Amino acid sequence: MRWPVVTYITGILLFALGLSMLLPVVCSVFYGDGVLSALIVSALFTTISGAVAILLCRDASFDNITQREGMAIVAVGWTVVGLYGALPFYVSGYFPHFVDAFFESVSGFTTTGSSVLTNIEAVPKGLLFWRSLIQWLGGMGIIVLSLAILPFLGVGGMQLYKAEVPSPVPDKLKPRLSETASLLWKVYALISLVEVVLLLFGGMDLFDSLCHTFTTMPTGGFSTLNTSVAGFDSTYIDVVIIVFMVLAGINFSLHYQMLRGKSLAFWEDPECRWFLLIVLGLSVIVTFDIYGSVYDSLPDALRYGTFQVVSIITTTGYATADYELWPGLSQVLIFLCMFIGASAGSTGGGMKVVRVMLCLKYCYRELYMMIHPRAVATIKLGGKAVSEDVMRSIIGFIAIYIGLFALCSVLLAAMGVDFVTAFTAVGSCIGNIGPGFGMVGPAENFALIPQAGKWLLIWCMLLGRLEIYTVIIFLVPEFWRK
Amino acid sequence: MRWPVVTYITGILLFALGLSMLLPVVCSVFYGDGVLSALIVSALFTTISGAVAILLCRDASFDNITQREGMAIVAVGWTVVGLYGALPFYVSGYFPHFVDAFFESVSGFTTTGSSVLTNIEAVPKGLLFWRSLIQWLGGMGIIVLSLAILPFLGVGGMQLYKAEVPSPVPDKLKPRLSETASLLWKVYALISLVEVVLLLFGGMDLFDSLCHTFTTMPTGGFSTLNTSVAGFDSTYIDVVIIVFMVLAGINFSLHYQMLRGKSLAFWEDPECRWFLLIVLGLSVIVTFDIYGSVYDSLPDALRYGTFQVVSIITTTGYATADYELWPGLSQVLIFLCMFIGASAGSTGGGMKVVRVMLCLKYCYRELYMMIHPRAVATIKLGGKAVSEDVMRSIIGFIAIYIGLFALCSVLLAAMGVDFVTAFTAVGSCIGNIGPGFGMVGPAENFALIPQAGKWLLIWCMLLGRLEIYTVIIFLVPEFWRK
Ligand SMILES: [K+]
Ligand SMILES: [K+]
Repeated sequence: MRWPVVTYITGILLFALGLSMLLPVVCSVFYGDGVLSALIVSALFTTISGAVAILLCRDASFDNITQREGMAIVAVGWTVVGLYGALPFYVSGYFPHFVDAFFESVSGFTTTGSSVLTNIEAVPKGLLFWRSLIQWLGGMGIIVLSLAILPFLGVGGMQLYKAEVPSPVPDKLKPRLSETASLLWKVYALISLVEVVLLLFGGMDLFDSLCHTFTTMPTGGFSTLNTSVAGFDSTYIDVVIIVFMVLAGINFSLHYQMLRGKSLAFWEDPECRWFLLIVLGLSVIVTFDIYGSVYDSLPDALRYGTFQVVSIITTTGYATADYELWPGLSQVLIFLCMFIGASAGSTGGGMKVVRVMLCLKYCYRELYMMIHPRAVATIKLGGKAVSEDVMRSIIGFIAIYIGLFALCSVLLAAMGVDFVTAFTAVGSCIGNIGPGFGMVGPAENFALIPQAGKWLLIWCMLLGRLEIYTVIIFLVPEFWRK
Repeated sequence: MRWPVVTYITGILLFALGLSMLLPVVCSVFYGDGVLSALIVSALFTTISGAVAILLCRDASFDNITQREGMAIVAVGWTVVGLYGALPFYVSGYFPHFVDAFFESVSGFTTTGSSVLTNIEAVPKGLLFWRSLIQWLGGMGIIVLSLAILPFLGVGGMQLYKAEVPSPVPDKLKPRLSETASLLWKVYALISLVEVVLLLFGGMDLFDSLCHTFTTMPTGGFSTLNTSVAGFDSTYIDVVIIVFMVLAGINFSLHYQMLRGKSLAFWEDPECRWFLLIVLGLSVIVTFDIYGSVYDSLPDALRYGTFQVVSIITTTGYATADYELWPGLSQVLIFLCMFIGASAGSTGGGMKVVRVMLCLKYCYRELYMMIHPRAVATIKLGGKAVSEDVMRSIIGFIAIYIGLFALCSVLLAAMGVDFVTAFTAVGSCIGNIGPGFGMVGPAENFALIPQAGKWLLIWCMLLGRLEIYTVIIFLVPEFWRK
């Protein structure tokens, strides 16, 4: 393991992070909100840390980066960025303990959106702007991670996307990585811009439009209001956000294809087709479940039902209603959505639709082979055979995901958290959703989780966001051998 | 598919079932409890039905029973026995709807132990005796099913046990099946006899000793008291039942080896070793979790903690305390125990320790292969390599188990059942445990579950008991083709 390479790249990330802190600085100056010095101190410290790391390791060799080094870069990079991103929160004094600031920052960069804030509206605008911006940056990171890095690290079946990465430079890793990143980021920025305009059009001010776009596109879910998107109480805004949450839950290489004129790209992709059908199906079921029992008018049931379903399955986590007050069926479906999640290659979390699809096909094949024991049955996705290695990798991913979900629920419960909260807080954090049930329902927050539990949930957020393998691998003794 | 074979064997089962109804008849005569005529009518009707089926299909050919026919025999046999076993309950008039009587009967034969009775002590002794006896008979069925039938049908990894089946006749299916059955049943009866004696010794009367032995050995969990085993309020009885629940959760071929003088059989078997260590570990953790918070004395915490852990992980389902009043950690652990279950080849349910073990090894291998991509890593169990086919079968089993758990929870919630009850009632019934959480907690019962929900849970109990594949296969269109 060549740590200088890891340090060098982390340094670049920190340098860029420090520069990006100038945006909330501008915001703070504009609103005169009193956190200017905290932001400047954080920006300076972060930029300088980055510069020092770069200078110290400027001779690092980038030849033949190994899988092991790739995973270290991903895990260390995200964690360190999370640490430095917490500085504005901590230095400003609005977060009582460092773990709270760190929790909020990692919840931002992993686009989880779980918050420890009890009164968001009392927080200065500069900090709220930073809180939204880090989700947007986290989303940029995750697109590149899932479409340009993980396919080549062979993580959890992401090998499937090796061929589908949009790239004008076909071969060498370094130029392809940066070209791919810049293409995808343009797409991401373009869609974000459209959302800002549409939200402004709906009567939001520029600050709220930017902040909510910064947290919709990465399926992040932080809001600037205590009541989340419900606070705007506008059907138009709800609809705009529903549409952009769905877009954010779709593989960004499909957006790229779409923009290049392939108008059926969404429908031709099997995962996207399933994702859209699941969203549609669940929205209809939940709408009829809450119609009559919660809402007297069908349009209301449709509006709130669809919003909550889309918000959870895309793993955004905004709320316009408290689903904990809904009937059992809606609650069970919403809970299960936390595990399915959005598409691979999107900014959404969870296990991802493609993995759930392939797992169902795996189960069906098992039954098929009970009936035809001598058959050789290959699993196909969109007409193409999926290799047994990739299948094993995907099934292993799901098993490890569920296993860690169970283990972390036990640990959180051991810290004094109740049954429902333990399971749903962990499920929500591993899936990068935001809210759960019980103590961490959509109308509550993570402030009352014990400190040790916050550390655990920080780890869960990173675990889920970095596709499990890249984080858990560090706990395998075999990794450190030789 | 040769249905006459299926009918013939079901006929034999019914004939035997009808004869076994004479035992509660004796009990009813002795206590003069007023259900004599209902029992006699049921016994006659069942015996005659069996005899008719046997006579009609006496020419059925048993040559080369196919895998498909084997599965049909298992699924149809268990379901029809469940139907006829409900007769005494229904004819006596103590169950308002047929579905209630059927639920109680299937809950008995699958050794689940979930009950729709709200006041058990008001039910005549003849019926209570029958209710316990069918669990004991169900346990006999499950031992033979898991050790002598499923290994040869290649179901869910039970192929692993092909070589370990105790059998003096090594080759042909028919003699081996009956020899194996008779050996295992002798072991089962012997251990049962010891428990009866020990319970009598603890001050139970003969009726209660028999009934509780009949429901301990199959990890069934029906009790004759409203408050379950708590009603005896005896540390001695608790300890005896804990020991016999653990014994019932161990592979019966190990009991056979033990009786043949192989005194280290339990420890040498990897699954049994894990099972005993899990039982021990969880008992200790739960004891310390409830010590101070629920019980002021450590011996009390140990007594109630161990009883509840053993009762749930062996999937027996007796209660001496209401774990819903315990801290979150104990609840989370008890809920997870419902999925782990006992050993394969025991009378316990759940996914089985051996499958959980192998799934963990599968996950570890995935991580190992991330680090050493070109390694050929074989999964071993007790030093022997487990073939990839068996692994696929086991992982498929777990995936289908969890998938059906989620699906049935959604369906149960759709019938108006709340979040926690939906998940835990289904988890409890698929795992053949008995109690769950919420509306179906250890201090409650299944009476308030809507009728459609009872049908669903009946299916879940059969699904879990017959190792998923043998029941679900009938829903695969491919099964009916050709
Ligand atoms: K989120
Ligand atoms: K049971």
